[in-house]
Amino acid sequence: MSEQAAAGQTSQERGESDGGLSRVEAFSDGVFAIAITLLVLQIELPSDLASGADLWQSLKDQSGDLLAFAISFAVIGRFWVAHHQFVRQLSALDGGLIGYNLVLLAFVVLVPFFSQVLGEYGDFSLASILYAGNLVALSVTHALIYGHALNRGLVRPEARREIASGRRSWLYNAAVFGISMPLAIPLGSYTPLLWLLLAFDPFNLRQGAQED
Amino acid sequence: MSEQAAAGQTSQERGESDGGLSRVEAFSDGVFAIAITLLVLQIELPSDLASGADLWQSLKDQSGDLLAFAISFAVIGRFWVAHHQFVRQLSALDGGLIGYNLVLLAFVVLVPFFSQVLGEYGDFSLASILYAGNLVALSVTHALIYGHALNRGLVRPEARREIASGRRSWLYNAAVFGISMPLAIPLGSYTPLLWLLLAFDPFNLRQGAQED
Amino acid sequence: MSEQAAAGQTSQERGESDGGLSRVEAFSDGVFAIAITLLVLQIELPSDLASGADLWQSLKDQSGDLLAFAISFAVIGRFWVAHHQFVRQLSALDGGLIGYNLVLLAFVVLVPFFSQVLGEYGDFSLASILYAGNLVALSVTHALIYGHALNRGLVRPEARREIASGRRSWLYNAAVFGISMPLAIPLGSYTPLLWLLLAFDPFNLRQGAQED
Amino acid sequence: MSEQAAAGQTSQERGESDGGLSRVEAFSDGVFAIAITLLVLQIELPSDLASGADLWQSLKDQSGDLLAFAISFAVIGRFWVAHHQFVRQLSALDGGLIGYNLVLLAFVVLVPFFSQVLGEYGDFSLASILYAGNLVALSVTHALIYGHALNRGLVRPEARREIASGRRSWLYNAAVFGISMPLAIPLGSYTPLLWLLLAFDPFNLRQGAQED
Repeated sequence: MSEQAAAGQTSQERGESDGGLSRVEAFSDGVFAIAITLLVLQIELPSDLASGADLWQSLKDQSGDLLAFAISFAVIGRFWVAHHQFVRQLSALDGGLIGYNLVLLAFVVLVPFFSQVLGEYGDFSLASILYAGNLVALSVTHALIYGHALNRGLVRPEARREIASGRRSWLYNAAVFGISMPLAIPLGSYTPLLWLLLAFDPFNLRQGAQED
Repeated sequence: MSEQAAAGQTSQERGESDGGLSRVEAFSDGVFAIAITLLVLQIELPSDLASGADLWQSLKDQSGDLLAFAISFAVIGRFWVAHHQFVRQLSALDGGLIGYNLVLLAFVVLVPFFSQVLGEYGDFSLASILYAGNLVALSVTHALIYGHALNRGLVRPEARREIASGRRSWLYNAAVFGISMPLAIPLGSYTPLLWLLLAFDPFNLRQGAQED
Repeated sequence: MSEQAAAGQTSQERGESDGGLSRVEAFSDGVFAIAITLLVLQIELPSDLASGADLWQSLKDQSGDLLAFAISFAVIGRFWVAHHQFVRQLSALDGGLIGYNLVLLAFVVLVPFFSQVLGEYGDFSLASILYAGNLVALSVTHALIYGHALNRGLVRPEARREIASGRRSWLYNAAVFGISMPLAIPLGSYTPLLWLLLAFDPFNLRQGAQED
Repeated sequence: MSEQAAAGQTSQERGESDGGLSRVEAFSDGVFAIAITLLVLQIELPSDLASGADLWQSLKDQSGDLLAFAISFAVIGRFWVAHHQFVRQLSALDGGLIGYNLVLLAFVVLVPFFSQVLGEYGDFSLASILYAGNLVALSVTHALIYGHALNRGLVRPEARREIASGRRSWLYNAAVFGISMPLAIPLGSYTPLLWLLLAFDPFNLRQGAQED
């Protein structure tokens, strides 16, 4: 970092006085944007339907796919908003944060796969368990990256409280998805309803968005 | 926002004096760019054709796919231009706008799916009805986001008239697509011709582009 | 534009003193990047191969796909470099340029499709004819957009000569691809060799890249 | 370049005082982000499974796919981090660097394909050989681009030592992947374990990331 500081002027000329944060944002935005758009590929269209009525029937048979699309779009969208707010509160970057961010993106990239499992096999409890398991991993990684940023002093001073609150919020997220995993055995395809508990987050991840 | 203002200097160092607008642009651009590029995946190529004549025949059989590709490319492209002009007129961002923008992007992401339905089953009125229905939803969401930006004072003062006019233009869009839905029953595969009425938009969405 | 000028200060705060050029770049870069990456999807892998020898044989059978991948990667990559240089020479943007750019991107998006046709059916002259036809359209659109930028005064004064030369270069490109279309009938799968004539471009599109 | 210098002021207004580096970054980030996200498409889901037990069995059968996904995600992610650090150390750009960068991106784009080969046919030595071969090519291209940047004086003076060290690091990478190719014949599906030798890189590619 000291060399970096010495090279401040050159760096500034290149618009990189942010120590590389903007490129981490660009890469992450790319991954989020692609993952959210790939969700559409899971809605499959049978070929060789004979009539409009068949087409309508076929779309109704895919209501599971459409529901999984809507859930996953909301999930990735919400996570992107949170990521966006988190990165804005950083004042610096280190290798650990880049590493955590890659792990986090790996779980984001897996959402379309588990979404497809949920859309196709939502009647089996296992589909909800796997989907929720991936989101537990994603939420825990978020909590870890927030903690890492706080411990290493990468957060702007005036935003420390907000990030600490955001970290508790991610643990709440992890708890909701975690509790839904065993409950999926009796609940089956009704499991996603449990995830609405996220709206009652006492640590208020959304508030940040409202005030932003 | 007040904390944000206090943190102005730090924020500026990070090139974020725009309150996060540039990252919303980056994410939206990503989604638009991916959705418009995924359109090409709908044009399918049969394998194991025996001759050039078979290849030619097979491409002719996909004229519906090619037409749907052209329509959807124009639709997404035009919507991207409008989005681009809209975001440029904003002076600030709030959580509601981020939320509306995600809903808007969800309908953009669905265009490739409905485009595939239109390409494959354009002879059935239902295909045009579904395609137009998605665009009604997209146009109404646009009108809502414009209204939200106006009501919450997120629009740059000198651009308020333009945005108000843009909002009426989206309602005209919604009306054209909405009227085409029942008319698709008699019109069938000729329905897309109705959408050319968009060129006669009295509120002149395109004018902005010309003067830009 | 006059309103825009009046709003200069606000605009500058948002880092948009470029009149929107950076967002056109971002969107175009996205489309180029996605189209070039989608090329990999055309290389198909049969499932249920019984041995390493079968795998090797299967990859050899796809040498056409790999060749088409290489050609198309070079084509899109080179076009991206040219686009990059072109946009850098602009001083302003108008609606016509945005429109031409969308048409240009539509032909870029079609490259992966025609690349797949070339990879699968390169033995039929028709595949080369279609592939070259798309590139004629792309080159002509490039020539048109260069001309439009020159005529409307959107080019930075010191770059006018370079852009005028670039325009002739695109017409040379169009000529090479255009001439290869009838010659594909006798040449068949050797047609791509003709495209190496692009390396002898007298108007020297590449020179710009070397000096950049 | 001299013309460019003369045009400094105009260029700066457009935020391009970096000579186009930011757009090369944007395009490269896009390709990396798309390639890393496309990895998820290789994890296939059979349709028409009859029970949760079948779904579980089917996912277990795809453990090879999941392992290949994890390896390739780490590979592309690590390469992106390195690319990010490399571009940040550049002070200028030339046509050669743009060309090398395109070649480099071509090998990045091929990773998802070879990853699919590895996931599906990891039991055959040939799959590991091909996967490693692509990474040898990618590592050598990296070494070449680092050397080119050093020789042409495109590296910021204070970063020359770091880039020289990074170049040796890429040659170490190439050696590890290269040595694993013949060893894959006896080792078969255990070959990826050899790649863990990358963690013992004496030239310490990662150190840069830690200090960043």
